[in-house]
Amino acid sequence: MKRSIYTLLFCFALSFTSFGQSHINGFPGQSSQAQLQLEDKFDKLLSKKNIGEAIREYSAKPHHLGSAQGKIVAESIRRRFASYGWDARIETYQVLFPTPKNRLLELIAPTKFTALLKEPAFPEDATSGQEGQLPTYNAWGADGDVTGQLVFVNFGLPEDYEVLKRYGIDIKGKIVIARYGRSWRGIKPKIAWEHGAIGCIIYSDPKEDGYYQGDVYPKGPFKNEHTVQRGSVMDMVVYPGDPLTPNEGATEKAKRIDRSEAPTILKIPVLPISYHDAQPLLAALGGPVAPAEWRGALPLTYRIGPGQAQVHLKVESNWDIVPAYNVIAKIKGSVYPDEWVIRGNHHDAWVNGADDPVSGLAALLEEAKAIGTLYKSGIRPKRTLVYCAWDGEEQSLLGSTEWAEYHAAELQKKAVAYINSDGNSRGFLGAGGSHALENLVDGISRSVKDPQTGATVYERLKARDIVRAGTAKQKKELIKKDTLALSALGTGSDYSAFLQHLGIPSLNLGYGGEDEGGDYHSIYDSYDDYVRFKDSDFSYGVTLSQTAGRAALRLANADVLPFDFTSLRRRISGYVQELSQLADQLRESYAVQNTLVSDKYYQLAADPREKLQIPELKPEVPKFEFGSLKSALDSLDAAAIALSGKTQAAGGNPRARAALNQLLFQAEKSLLSDEGLPHRPWYRHTIYAPGFYTGYGVKTLPGIREAIEQGKWDEAKHQTEVVTAAILRLARQLGKINQQQYLSQVK
Amino acid sequence: MKRSIYTLLFCFALSFTSFGQSHINGFPGQSSQAQLQLEDKFDKLLSKKNIGEAIREYSAKPHHLGSAQGKIVAESIRRRFASYGWDARIETYQVLFPTPKNRLLELIAPTKFTALLKEPAFPEDATSGQEGQLPTYNAWGADGDVTGQLVFVNFGLPEDYEVLKRYGIDIKGKIVIARYGRSWRGIKPKIAWEHGAIGCIIYSDPKEDGYYQGDVYPKGPFKNEHTVQRGSVMDMVVYPGDPLTPNEGATEKAKRIDRSEAPTILKIPVLPISYHDAQPLLAALGGPVAPAEWRGALPLTYRIGPGQAQVHLKVESNWDIVPAYNVIAKIKGSVYPDEWVIRGNHHDAWVNGADDPVSGLAALLEEAKAIGTLYKSGIRPKRTLVYCAWDGEEQSLLGSTEWAEYHAAELQKKAVAYINSDGNSRGFLGAGGSHALENLVDGISRSVKDPQTGATVYERLKARDIVRAGTAKQKKELIKKDTLALSALGTGSDYSAFLQHLGIPSLNLGYGGEDEGGDYHSIYDSYDDYVRFKDSDFSYGVTLSQTAGRAALRLANADVLPFDFTSLRRRISGYVQELSQLADQLRESYAVQNTLVSDKYYQLAADPREKLQIPELKPEVPKFEFGSLKSALDSLDAAAIALSGKTQAAGGNPRARAALNQLLFQAEKSLLSDEGLPHRPWYRHTIYAPGFYTGYGVKTLPGIREAIEQGKWDEAKHQTEVVTAAILRLARQLGKINQQQYLSQVK
Repeated sequence: MKRSIYTLLFCFALSFTSFGQSHINGFPGQSSQAQLQLEDKFDKLLSKKNIGEAIREYSAKPHHLGSAQGKIVAESIRRRFASYGWDARIETYQVLFPTPKNRLLELIAPTKFTALLKEPAFPEDATSGQEGQLPTYNAWGADGDVTGQLVFVNFGLPEDYEVLKRYGIDIKGKIVIARYGRSWRGIKPKIAWEHGAIGCIIYSDPKEDGYYQGDVYPKGPFKNEHTVQRGSVMDMVVYPGDPLTPNEGATEKAKRIDRSEAPTILKIPVLPISYHDAQPLLAALGGPVAPAEWRGALPLTYRIGPGQAQVHLKVESNWDIVPAYNVIAKIKGSVYPDEWVIRGNHHDAWVNGADDPVSGLAALLEEAKAIGTLYKSGIRPKRTLVYCAWDGEEQSLLGSTEWAEYHAAELQKKAVAYINSDGNSRGFLGAGGSHALENLVDGISRSVKDPQTGATVYERLKARDIVRAGTAKQKKELIKKDTLALSALGTGSDYSAFLQHLGIPSLNLGYGGEDEGGDYHSIYDSYDDYVRFKDSDFSYGVTLSQTAGRAALRLANADVLPFDFTSLRRRISGYVQELSQLADQLRESYAVQNTLVSDKYYQLAADPREKLQIPELKPEVPKFEFGSLKSALDSLDAAAIALSGKTQAAGGNPRARAALNQLLFQAEKSLLSDEGLPHRPWYRHTIYAPGFYTGYGVKTLPGIREAIEQGKWDEAKHQTEVVTAAILRLARQLGKINQQQYLSQVK
Repeated sequence: MKRSIYTLLFCFALSFTSFGQSHINGFPGQSSQAQLQLEDKFDKLLSKKNIGEAIREYSAKPHHLGSAQGKIVAESIRRRFASYGWDARIETYQVLFPTPKNRLLELIAPTKFTALLKEPAFPEDATSGQEGQLPTYNAWGADGDVTGQLVFVNFGLPEDYEVLKRYGIDIKGKIVIARYGRSWRGIKPKIAWEHGAIGCIIYSDPKEDGYYQGDVYPKGPFKNEHTVQRGSVMDMVVYPGDPLTPNEGATEKAKRIDRSEAPTILKIPVLPISYHDAQPLLAALGGPVAPAEWRGALPLTYRIGPGQAQVHLKVESNWDIVPAYNVIAKIKGSVYPDEWVIRGNHHDAWVNGADDPVSGLAALLEEAKAIGTLYKSGIRPKRTLVYCAWDGEEQSLLGSTEWAEYHAAELQKKAVAYINSDGNSRGFLGAGGSHALENLVDGISRSVKDPQTGATVYERLKARDIVRAGTAKQKKELIKKDTLALSALGTGSDYSAFLQHLGIPSLNLGYGGEDEGGDYHSIYDSYDDYVRFKDSDFSYGVTLSQTAGRAALRLANADVLPFDFTSLRRRISGYVQELSQLADQLRESYAVQNTLVSDKYYQLAADPREKLQIPELKPEVPKFEFGSLKSALDSLDAAAIALSGKTQAAGGNPRARAALNQLLFQAEKSLLSDEGLPHRPWYRHTIYAPGFYTGYGVKTLPGIREAIEQGKWDEAKHQTEVVTAAILRLARQLGKINQQQYLSQVK
């Protein structure tokens, strides 16, 4: 067993060469063969070199939203599409975008220190010293000039504030410092504000991203002491996109709310800083020693505060309205021109953005080139392909959201699916999306090869999940499992408006996991960094093109669209089971905690010198009745099973098939609710949403789940009814498809 | 729910005042009342002030084994006992004891650095600058002068070497650096040597003990950058005590083996260092980044090595034979003078040792004072009390082991029980020992008050266990549980020879858990440190006196000795169940791991740039047959249940009762095996032993458990027979007691 890994990988590569499939869902009879031949031609048109050159070109200079270079990039992309044979144009929206005017952070007691707020240039990184970089800041924090005591709030999550309460520390009127990680950054200042903080500093701890993880930039990929993660802190879990034009495309003439009334702009100033700038602040904190889970990797005793530490934070922005340039390219479908398969990746970056977003954009452009070449040779997709390069994604999905809002009616009628990507790198397939498309992605993942091992990307992903699983039991279950698991989508990239606002079936695809590093949203997300530490030879760029390209082409060409509602039903049932368990666990743990309080176990166990507060009594958790929801799922199950197979075997009458396909791709809209989610009606999908207190992180069955988590029992009951109605709508829709007039004719 | 903890504690204290018991096991009828009155008098004779003064006196100067001050301390203790009315004398043994002659540690490549190996004095610590301190070193490492590449081995545990193997790093001919923690220190160089290392450095990482945990000394209690943990690295899991006189008391004329043949002296040089001295060494390491669980809290990227790092390590000792002065004090029993209840705590320290051992010693002396006062007033124990202050504990239990070996025959005949303590501090009762004494300690813990809360120490311990438990389910189980759990004993203090070599029922008692700090085995284990960070007003000194004093007095005065074999049987059954689960888990996890290897999941999941080795194939784990062992436990159960209650109700015929008591306290010796444990026959107890690869940490049913862990299936089978035979012997012994001739007469 001491052969080297190289020998093993070599043997292994030989054994995995025949991975092809002969049948593709949605392509009955001979059409599978034709599609496979098409994909083979498509693959041969993809070039690593091309992708590398596109990454170099589009990351050559800083090109954020509203910059001159951003416009140059958009225009270059439009010309590219056009040269590939696409009908390409730029659609411009006018969006609000704050950029820094003043940034100041000082420790004023017990010692003095002024934060640098600046990332240095390095000779190893050719673009790191360029003009035109956005300074280190968080967009959408309030303007403010505040001075106050400093308190460390760990990751700034709701549970961290539970801990603060036990220590008897109130942050009202104070400035908090939170570390990056565990939640989307925008959640940290939002929760801090809810608790009365007047300012929020977010820093990168070397524990999560710095010397603790490995060599720092430019020696290694991790954050050096000065690297800062920029980023939006908009309250995008209420709605993403331009804060001034909710539900409406931000055209020049759109109706705008006043900035002071925009609910997604934060109410306190926020500033991201490096660990060089954070260290003196953290070292100045007094108060209790932070619990072990709160401690990072700086060489100091992490304390909660406040003690003597006082800081002065001043942030002021230019609140300009700037143009966002979306590039929209189309190839009209030969059979179903009014059915659109949409594919998108943003083009704007915080700075140079070689990884985020250019690596994903370059793969998209390479797909477009190949599809264009096929088109020029006479091979047209049956459905219309719409390839998009979005602007303003970094400021919370501005370009894609405004476009989707503006074209909402047309999209809800025509859009078959939206396929998103963003940054891309070396490693494993990451795939999330609507579960009715799980089977589609499963099939694709078994037909695309991993460039490093020669196995399929499905096999490699499965192997990683097995090796990573914590217990032998879990490993055994994963070994047996023979389908790809599509993860549920929260937010964080351009699919949100399509999926969660419009109910368009969506996918988010990319590769990664072998590309550690701290360049994210810093000036070091550069071409030099990318070729040293990420997808050095751009081979995963080709892999992404193959994956997303297959998704686009299969959806575009399928005789019967490959939606599989048994997967969706199975997943929803799983989520309902999770909710039952969540409620049971809360009921048990709250009851036990109340016993610990009332029987004085906390008091007796406490170290009297530590002065910990006794936790508050928790509410009683009622028994939830998911019976009607489960019945609805049974109806859905029956309808999905009855349908399954039949549609895939369909041939025959083109008009009936067209009607069938309409019903199939429209089905997911049954899952939207008119009222939307509580406190955020823009989000209408009843199954998937970003968490109100997690940000990017998904909450499935969000209406019910968050109501239970937040102890709103009536809301949980109402939301259960909302979801039940949605499931029944979907079951009825599938029942409609199952009626003779469609299926008998397509057989 | 926002009342302060003080209010709550105050209310609480009022509600817990009536905690007394009216019946004590072993004291039938009226004798319980008499014993309770005696304990009440005993309690009133205990003084915090006295304990504080004793701690100050005995920690005033460094007083290690073999030092002039050590002799002065022993003589002072003897005089104290005598002044209290005890028959006290010093018993001297001649033991080997290495002290440093030369210590040198240099980094010689890629940069130069010479370790300081010195703890500085502080004005806040009056004794920290004294003459006569032993330098920082590990006793029992080999003399050596070695130069080699450096490799970081994390905690130096067997599983760490599994990780090294996956990284393809061989430590043969290299010097390893391990961090303190997770195992007894002596295990680290032992395993390193087994893997071919030529030297071993052990350092204290600030993660486990330093600024990561809190303020460092002298500002706070934790290790500053120069603090070093001294300590023995003798291979004491083979046998403790003088390496030259195994199984025999080290009198002047004892037969000695040659030092070169002593199996418990290590074969490679070992040196403990501070994190100041470790940092340049760790920073110099190349090779792969250490896995996350391996990383400490120094501000650097932890790497495994070796890379360029080369060190030069030189350690040379004076291998002197020195006198160990055990102080032995007796009060003869009035009824059973030949039944001895032994109580001990060591008096030697690595340096000043205010906590370790003087805080425990001072409590023992306070008990002796109170018992002596009672004795002078005419109250004599029924059995003989033997109070001991041991020398040379720090060098691996030299004083107690040589005494126990020398008096083995007499002790096996007369010793009813051995009650040990060591350092003592603020917090919760820690109680370990023979499970037949669990009921005794349970009763005591319900009659001793915690000085901080006014609750019983039982209630406080139970509360802590409940609050600490990870899950609601575990908390609920602990809330229901209404008996104290005695932990099983490994090693680490003076009970080993009594319990594991001679089969004398033993207890180890002490308080702690609210006394964090890094003074352990450093020059800062001082009176100044103790009063600032430990049991500041010595009230837990009194609590220990009450606890251990009750154990001694109840065992000394009981009409029928309070052994309860149902607890023992229950525990052993639990251990057998653990072994079944252990075997099942190993069988499953080995099988799964082999699948991962043979089906190439490891290969596919690996990052090709990381070059990880594929794990080796694991052996197949057979099904173990514990049927006969379980039958034996059934027999034991029947005998224990039949006995339980009957002995405790006993009164009557004194001669029969004496015979009954003999059988009761001799019962535990049934659990010794003649052959002893595999590879270490000195350890003869079949239920409790220190782990061969954990050191202090206990392994229950050690013969079977370690054979399974080490994959020695035949040995596991044989050891199962050994344990079965032991259980059957104990069942027969209990059956003997259960016969009419004893119980009918004592009724």
